[in-house]
Amino acid sequence: MTHETLDAGPELPAEAIDAIERAATAAHRHEELFSERAANIKQSAVRDVFDISMRPGLVSLAGGNPYLQSLPLEKLGDTAARIIAKEGMTALQYGGGQGTEELRTQICEIMAAEGIIDARPENVVITAGSQSAQDVATKVFCNPGDVVLVENPTYVGALNTFEAYQVQVEAVDMDDDGLIPELLEAKIVELQAKGKSIKFLYTIPNFNNPSGITLAPARRQRIVDICRNANILVLEDNPYGLLRFDGNPLAPMRAANPHDVIYMGSFSKIFAPGLRIGWALVPEHLQRRFYLASEAVTLCPPTLNQMIISAYLRDYDWQGQIDTYRALYEERCKAMLAGLEEYMPAGLDWTRPDGGFFVWVTLPEGVDTYPLLKKAIDAGVVFIPGAAFTHSDQPSNKLRLAFSAVPPEAITEGIRRLAPVLREAINIMDKGVTA
Amino acid sequence: MTHETLDAGPELPAEAIDAIERAATAAHRHEELFSERAANIKQSAVRDVFDISMRPGLVSLAGGNPYLQSLPLEKLGDTAARIIAKEGMTALQYGGGQGTEELRTQICEIMAAEGIIDARPENVVITAGSQSAQDVATKVFCNPGDVVLVENPTYVGALNTFEAYQVQVEAVDMDDDGLIPELLEAKIVELQAKGKSIKFLYTIPNFNNPSGITLAPARRQRIVDICRNANILVLEDNPYGLLRFDGNPLAPMRAANPHDVIYMGSFSKIFAPGLRIGWALVPEHLQRRFYLASEAVTLCPPTLNQMIISAYLRDYDWQGQIDTYRALYEERCKAMLAGLEEYMPAGLDWTRPDGGFFVWVTLPEGVDTYPLLKKAIDAGVVFIPGAAFTHSDQPSNKLRLAFSAVPPEAITEGIRRLAPVLREAINIMDKGVTA
Repeated sequence: MTHETLDAGPELPAEAIDAIERAATAAHRHEELFSERAANIKQSAVRDVFDISMRPGLVSLAGGNPYLQSLPLEKLGDTAARIIAKEGMTALQYGGGQGTEELRTQICEIMAAEGIIDARPENVVITAGSQSAQDVATKVFCNPGDVVLVENPTYVGALNTFEAYQVQVEAVDMDDDGLIPELLEAKIVELQAKGKSIKFLYTIPNFNNPSGITLAPARRQRIVDICRNANILVLEDNPYGLLRFDGNPLAPMRAANPHDVIYMGSFSKIFAPGLRIGWALVPEHLQRRFYLASEAVTLCPPTLNQMIISAYLRDYDWQGQIDTYRALYEERCKAMLAGLEEYMPAGLDWTRPDGGFFVWVTLPEGVDTYPLLKKAIDAGVVFIPGAAFTHSDQPSNKLRLAFSAVPPEAITEGIRRLAPVLREAINIMDKGVTA
Repeated sequence: MTHETLDAGPELPAEAIDAIERAATAAHRHEELFSERAANIKQSAVRDVFDISMRPGLVSLAGGNPYLQSLPLEKLGDTAARIIAKEGMTALQYGGGQGTEELRTQICEIMAAEGIIDARPENVVITAGSQSAQDVATKVFCNPGDVVLVENPTYVGALNTFEAYQVQVEAVDMDDDGLIPELLEAKIVELQAKGKSIKFLYTIPNFNNPSGITLAPARRQRIVDICRNANILVLEDNPYGLLRFDGNPLAPMRAANPHDVIYMGSFSKIFAPGLRIGWALVPEHLQRRFYLASEAVTLCPPTLNQMIISAYLRDYDWQGQIDTYRALYEERCKAMLAGLEEYMPAGLDWTRPDGGFFVWVTLPEGVDTYPLLKKAIDAGVVFIPGAAFTHSDQPSNKLRLAFSAVPPEAITEGIRRLAPVLREAINIMDKGVTA
């Protein structure tokens, strides 16, 4: 609004001025009411980009949405109709806080397909997506100032959850084989020497979001042992485990370690995220407190959604659907890697994932990918700058590319558009000019 | 297991003994990992009774489940089928953290029917039931040790949520016209004189759960003014507002106080709880932090569920359905009040609600209703002892009866069964004998 329009505008009625003043006063008065943790709750950088990436014409390599076109939607619709018509009195009613026994039993079968063969329905807690399980775990274990260990980089949604509880997030570096045990050990020693209370290690061992890196099987037991010896729980987040391209999922850390690992799974990537159903498999001795905390947040997970998933697991070829997803994502991953190979300038490196949704690109040291996002959008492509996936405020020379939601041709086109933006950034840096 | 069977039993293999020992050690080691707040997260007494009340032959006046038989289930099934078949790519995908714009707009229309005419979709945050909105509000405003004011009695689920955040819950008594303003004022003065930081008043002004009491219209503005003057927010929880038997809902406290009241609504009572969709209408200056905290817990509310509700509000006579619910609950309430009148012994008093789900029965001072629950179950009827609805550990001479979920004849029968249990308790007390 220009100065002119302000002057020329009609005078506000006294009532409106009064209302504006009351709002301003309330805002001022209420500032002191926020909890200390409220200041730690931030907008996710991924969400920042979410709206932009919907613009027509843009190729979005930003959002890690699964690709749902291959689902049998007509048939699923019939299933939902039948559940509501025949069992609506149950499906639309409150249910148990832990989730339905049928779905918890089926979840044990899914986990068995991943290599966890001793899971019992009693120890499964169904949650509103596995995001909610992360929230519950932090609530149950973390006092403000406690330490949570994470991989560097790690899932931005988990970082947001942890920060809301005012924990100290400490990141441990990864190499191509995932979290580095020696660094984990050193970090624990360093923090415990300072008297810090470390509650858990949060890890995404398969196709880590954002890096796509997989924790090597040989390292898995060692990581659990390090944590056990230091009395630190492991929070194993495994939404992508069954999406390993070769169809042979690696055994989760939970498989051989029933007492020390809280395992989190989700239907978001192997079926559909819009139902918001995930779960935690909790060691028996921790189950009760975990469950009560979950119930205190949402009373119960949505019954209808649980029943739709139960019917899907019972009456559909859910494993065939995972094969379909796997083939689809493998094709897209290949297109992305081929595009990077073809178009990217020298000086870049990237991961070559065995599954999941993401490739992680590393630019030369000194390049900050955050200001490149605007240039990329101008060039018609969107990515997520690497800084989003770390707790630190330092600039990052990394970026995340998602191949899950976009067809192969669009991926290739997106990479083609991105290449000159990155090339220019490298050239500018090489000339010693700061952007 | 007797001593004999222990001796005679086969010896456990060394491996099994090892596993049992490892579990015990882990349980012991992990005890120190729980957060301080974890100790405050308790089983809800309502949930305790939940399983028992499913026993065949029992009349359950315990659970406040809505009665869903009057919903057009066949047609709703078709609606869900159409949404999944035609819009499944949206319905089964992640959505925005605040909820869909369509549903937020419709929610503003519902609130207009209740008397809030200035609500804007931007200030609505859709949550996983209004339980989740209570959790978010506590997260955003309360540090450990802060005070939350509640009505005495109040909703057990809210108490569980508050206690999980280690707040100090302070209850203010009600009379037949609801929360007593003078007592509220005195409590605030007393607490603030002690240097306590009071963050909000949690209130259920219409047909309070568990008491069924309604806050008189003449008191509503006064309560808000008292809170505003003390810089305390009002959390107005209004799941039953539209279920006022006479069909004329009272204006919420939020209506005339857009800056000082966070208003919470729910589809659980006016449509169906199994979808787990509620909302908060948040003052503009508090909206952003509220929304981010909600997103950090669940990413987004389930898209499918929001779309089913949007279709229901768009294509069905949802107001007619509320009329149906209202008539149904009024009939049941009448049956309960008539049963109490007919069967209950002298010395009892109970509330006469104008809507909602609950009647609150007061026994003579000195009677503890908790031990009566077992006797009532033996007599074939279940209620919730009054102690569940207060923060204190004191015995309570109150009990909650829910009329929502049971047909009139069963209500009458339940009261008939309950009467001798209460009569005996009164008689024992009159004779000066402690049970």
